[in-house]
Amino acid sequence: MRQSHLFTKTRKDAPKDEVSKNAILLTRAGFIHKEMAGVYTMLPLGLRVLSKIESSIRRHMDQIGNELLMTALSPKETWETTGRIETVDVLMKTLPANKVSEEKSSASYILGSTHEEMITPIAQEYTRSYKDLPVSFYQIQTKFRNEARAKSGLLRGREFRMKDLYSFHKDEDDLKTYYEIAKKSYLDIFREIGLGDDTFITLAGGGDFTKDFSHEFQTLCEAGEDTIYLDRKNNIAYNKEVVTDENAQKLGIDFTAFEQVKACEVGNIFPLNTKFSKAFDYTYTDENGDKKDVYMGCYGIGPTRLMGVIVEKYADDKGLIWPESIAPFSIHLLTLSKDKSGESYEKAEQLYKNLTDAHVEVLFDDREESAGAKFADSDLIGIPMRVVVSDKSLASGGVEIKERKSEKSEIVTIEQLLTMYTKEC
Amino acid sequence: MRQSHLFTKTRKDAPKDEVSKNAILLTRAGFIHKEMAGVYTMLPLGLRVLSKIESSIRRHMDQIGNELLMTALSPKETWETTGRIETVDVLMKTLPANKVSEEKSSASYILGSTHEEMITPIAQEYTRSYKDLPVSFYQIQTKFRNEARAKSGLLRGREFRMKDLYSFHKDEDDLKTYYEIAKKSYLDIFREIGLGDDTFITLAGGGDFTKDFSHEFQTLCEAGEDTIYLDRKNNIAYNKEVVTDENAQKLGIDFTAFEQVKACEVGNIFPLNTKFSKAFDYTYTDENGDKKDVYMGCYGIGPTRLMGVIVEKYADDKGLIWPESIAPFSIHLLTLSKDKSGESYEKAEQLYKNLTDAHVEVLFDDREESAGAKFADSDLIGIPMRVVVSDKSLASGGVEIKERKSEKSEIVTIEQLLTMYTKEC
Repeated sequence: MRQSHLFTKTRKDAPKDEVSKNAILLTRAGFIHKEMAGVYTMLPLGLRVLSKIESSIRRHMDQIGNELLMTALSPKETWETTGRIETVDVLMKTLPANKVSEEKSSASYILGSTHEEMITPIAQEYTRSYKDLPVSFYQIQTKFRNEARAKSGLLRGREFRMKDLYSFHKDEDDLKTYYEIAKKSYLDIFREIGLGDDTFITLAGGGDFTKDFSHEFQTLCEAGEDTIYLDRKNNIAYNKEVVTDENAQKLGIDFTAFEQVKACEVGNIFPLNTKFSKAFDYTYTDENGDKKDVYMGCYGIGPTRLMGVIVEKYADDKGLIWPESIAPFSIHLLTLSKDKSGESYEKAEQLYKNLTDAHVEVLFDDREESAGAKFADSDLIGIPMRVVVSDKSLASGGVEIKERKSEKSEIVTIEQLLTMYTKEC
Repeated sequence: MRQSHLFTKTRKDAPKDEVSKNAILLTRAGFIHKEMAGVYTMLPLGLRVLSKIESSIRRHMDQIGNELLMTALSPKETWETTGRIETVDVLMKTLPANKVSEEKSSASYILGSTHEEMITPIAQEYTRSYKDLPVSFYQIQTKFRNEARAKSGLLRGREFRMKDLYSFHKDEDDLKTYYEIAKKSYLDIFREIGLGDDTFITLAGGGDFTKDFSHEFQTLCEAGEDTIYLDRKNNIAYNKEVVTDENAQKLGIDFTAFEQVKACEVGNIFPLNTKFSKAFDYTYTDENGDKKDVYMGCYGIGPTRLMGVIVEKYADDKGLIWPESIAPFSIHLLTLSKDKSGESYEKAEQLYKNLTDAHVEVLFDDREESAGAKFADSDLIGIPMRVVVSDKSLASGGVEIKERKSEKSEIVTIEQLLTMYTKEC
């Protein structure tokens, strides 16, 4: 893509109404546009990152579940069935916005903050026999939560993207088996998008759902809202909320030997057991013709939140730094020439063509800006590799390449660069 | 995909609460699940079709616009700016759903039924100079409309998918130029997804937006809510709403010579001109440093609606019939053998493997069902090509192939089938 065609512009000043690093940098670099607190439009650069995160999640989820797409609107009755219509403190409903709308239909719906109330009746309709179980469903969809505070940019949105997976089982053992498969799949996803080394499975409270522990995936991050007690050697962590004398005794653990670190939740999984199946009277017929309760698990990852965490974790004082796997582009190609008929501009054009022909994703800064402005924008946008074509680089034998996360640049020939990026084709 | 892994089941009986052909058949075949009137979950088969429609639209839109993703929630203020907060008769707002939610935040938002109120301030922020124009943005996103009646299945949803494109221009001429480019792009999309031959650009009223005609894309369809006056020879149509004596005189047209046909709107485009830019005081600075009004156009296509129209138009009394380009799978492979160690089952397994290895999308009916049940399900699901592997077909020299839309079947060798579907690789 030509940067001259990218309508967004970078800005030097931080937006006045943002305090979080992720919202400030993503706004300055033109990735997001704030509509209201906790509500952000994904601009083209931001949508590219979000789409890559969601594609990665989808690839892994397709191995362990059936993708579907539920709706945001749901009937009040289904939330009354579980009683959560009164207890979920972020739940929103809809009403007609004006008199003419009200005259047409006064209907009111619940806006989904989570989808147990919707997936359970769907599973119930299609899977009533032991032959149909286990079964698992996932969706990547927009969720709505009436958060009291929404000052953390993409970390805590009132409208945000969520991948939610739900699994249904014959018994607790089968749920536990699948639960471990889902855990592994989650770790694979975090590794793939660049958070693998610093993400730990963390035991946390079961919340509404269960007296057991639930499992969170916590990524070490200064901006994180959680504190975890971490045992790196044994690769296990506990959320501070469950670090109690009672649990220490129950588990035989000396929490004082653990490292206390700030972390950000990037995923969570819950053994729901029979909570929802009992509410909906969802049973299956077993091999002997007897009716049995269905066991259920749920598993969530927030793609927009992941995007925010990655910014918080990797950005430096110059701007964003994207891991290769989710970067909006692989290469930021800069021409420093304003003379479009000169050799160095033509070489840059040719390189842009050769790379895009080889399906390498390139943002080509073809604008008439100063070298300084282009370098600053490149650092701010955070594409993993910067490639500069200039009279000076050509005189030195090629193009100047520099990884965003490194201070070191070097000259390589155009052929070497093409080989680096097209070797897999 | 193995049909034994597809958790949805077909059903013989029509759902009691549906009257539209599309909702009845899509429900019976396991493509959609009704949550409420006008609100449908996309089950795996349905999501596959929807995703293909959206991918086709995206490919064409990427040629003429920048993709972004706006939010469903928007602030009331922006709708007050245009005054539409009082006039849009399908507009919904949000409120906290319960007491605990209300205590946390009493905030109320508008739920987007269309996005002029959101895109105009975004365009305004980034494009203030003649150098930045023209610019166009599109998104594929979920919309919410409080429709009074929602009895037409996917044709009129309270929650539905929409591709909305908005363009911004220096003057009316530039808008008109782009408007023609968008028209062509729309016709390309309708052709690609299988509606090309029966879709006509239709002049309609400008609605809220303009005193000019707007342009609808109307597909001939008995279930359509519109009547159009069609001149096939000259490839032009008029919505009945503009077929008045006044327009006949103004345009010098004899409408009595036109064919009157039922049609379904599959897209619409509006020259918004300066309606929204004036409301938001959105001007640009021209070459002389003068401030000028920005001209604007909007262009909509509803992917879920398209899915419904295609069902209404092509399905027969046995079930769905999908055009190849948006079918959930290319081939429905049926084994009629229940003996998994027998030759015909093994041949089917091998064929399934060979086809999927060649990236052909195959639904493999490996279930232990009767031949009659499998044929009926295959007709109901509507995959373009049915391939049957049975002892009988093998004795005749290969596999039996039959197009869904044809009554004729024939025997081809397995090699011939593979050549048919893998020739492009």
